[in-house]
Amino acid sequence: MVGTAAETTGLAELSANKCFGGWQKRYSHKSNVLKCDMQFSVFIPPISDPNEKLPALYWLSGLTCTDENFSAKAGAQRVAAELGIMLIMPDTSPRGDHIPDAADAAYDLGLGAGFYVNATQEPWHNHYQMYDYIVEELPALIKKEFRVKEKAAIAGHSMGGHGALTIALSNMKQYCSVSAFAPIVNPSDCQWGQKAFNNYLGENQKDWEAYDSCMLMRQQGKFLHIPMLVDQGLDDNFFHTQKLTKPLEEVALELGYEAEFRYHAGYDHSYFFIASFIESHLRFHAEHLLKQ
Amino acid sequence: MVGTAAETTGLAELSANKCFGGWQKRYSHKSNVLKCDMQFSVFIPPISDPNEKLPALYWLSGLTCTDENFSAKAGAQRVAAELGIMLIMPDTSPRGDHIPDAADAAYDLGLGAGFYVNATQEPWHNHYQMYDYIVEELPALIKKEFRVKEKAAIAGHSMGGHGALTIALSNMKQYCSVSAFAPIVNPSDCQWGQKAFNNYLGENQKDWEAYDSCMLMRQQGKFLHIPMLVDQGLDDNFFHTQKLTKPLEEVALELGYEAEFRYHAGYDHSYFFIASFIESHLRFHAEHLLKQ
Repeated sequence: MVGTAAETTGLAELSANKCFGGWQKRYSHKSNVLKCDMQFSVFIPPISDPNEKLPALYWLSGLTCTDENFSAKAGAQRVAAELGIMLIMPDTSPRGDHIPDAADAAYDLGLGAGFYVNATQEPWHNHYQMYDYIVEELPALIKKEFRVKEKAAIAGHSMGGHGALTIALSNMKQYCSVSAFAPIVNPSDCQWGQKAFNNYLGENQKDWEAYDSCMLMRQQGKFLHIPMLVDQGLDDNFFHTQKLTKPLEEVALELGYEAEFRYHAGYDHSYFFIASFIESHLRFHAEHLLKQ
Repeated sequence: MVGTAAETTGLAELSANKCFGGWQKRYSHKSNVLKCDMQFSVFIPPISDPNEKLPALYWLSGLTCTDENFSAKAGAQRVAAELGIMLIMPDTSPRGDHIPDAADAAYDLGLGAGFYVNATQEPWHNHYQMYDYIVEELPALIKKEFRVKEKAAIAGHSMGGHGALTIALSNMKQYCSVSAFAPIVNPSDCQWGQKAFNNYLGENQKDWEAYDSCMLMRQQGKFLHIPMLVDQGLDDNFFHTQKLTKPLEEVALELGYEAEFRYHAGYDHSYFFIASFIESHLRFHAEHLLKQ
């Protein structure tokens, strides 16, 4: 279907590389939500039955990343090809010369650091609407251009792990499962999150709660449940300082929310950690994606 | 053993990331051969018996690459960990502000484009001695610092495939097996090779023969044999223009030199191609490495 509707969505194929029998592709499109051109990458697994709807996994990347880090470094295509899962890899912020950036071009605010929130503050709110982009605009585009199953899986790393968890916990009927590597689970209480939220959402901490996994699990997790897997390296420099993983496990234990939290001695915050465990995340999601 | 001999070799660990139960590491050392500081990467698989010598595979990268491309993009560590193979990933040229580069900083000459030859011409010969670095200096350093088996395997991509094949064909007793992805097999007869050889080796084409896989197989392949596997994508833009793979297969067929050449519809020159087939290369080398 790709190509036929190019006029209506402005979708343009930037590159296509055959990979594990499927296709690694990169697209550009005009985002109405972010008011800029956006790129995203997909992996389309080898397709045996073109009438079958593909199970799809959204991958949200971390600070400084684009749509290309995960596709180049995680080695996910091998297992995605085997399981027949489509991977969808969006960028981490709006992009372009007209997009506001941190005054000092800091890596943890502005370009490459959208934090998957809808900004309400100047100068950000006009473009930094990453929550709506990931939850609404991009899935609508994907459903228009590709044959995918109704519910998707969602996963991510660090800031993207925060994105995946908050989005899944806020939209438990839209996603079948969520997983994360070293996610920022309590951004309201760490430097990365406080800097982003103060800038994007303003000083009223009440407005931060909708984007804090720990708060969301307390609010939503009593009534609804989404299958959840979280991996954390114990030699991750950011583990304690940026409130990764552990505070959410504590909430889950307190609430009796069923989720798997795994800790790995020696592993750090890098893509070498992600590559080492991505296979089990894909198999976890496949189980839930294929139940539909 | 790493660290104990740091004084004598100047070996310094730059980074260490746990990966698939082993360690992805990056080192810097002073190269006497190249007269500069060099970086290289290694993957050390999980080690069950510290007295056992590790089988080791040298990976030579292509134009524009450093020691980090293969370690980040090929996804080789998973299978290397399973098979217990150490991966050694050198840089592709001498490095540093005092190293001559192409006048126009072209990607196919000078920095990032050492072509694995010993240059004889000005301004290159003082530093561009990549053949000696890969065949002698680096293996001596590796043997001093790590417990590795006597014979290594060698593999590479594009310019690095050329390097692996020429080095293996010239040193069949030092290596147990060779493999390549989209190698430049007849550099004497293509633009990349001619540009490099004219600059590094001078205009006398007789001096080019020692670095041309087709010529070397004709010279050496009648008497000696080294197991060889070559993969080539059929949608590789450089397949015909840069004399990749096919001319060597023709020589092998003519001589009755036993080697496996595989062609893959749809695949291009990228790391997505390498990632798709690296597992079978590692299993091929493991078979020969473990015979020692």
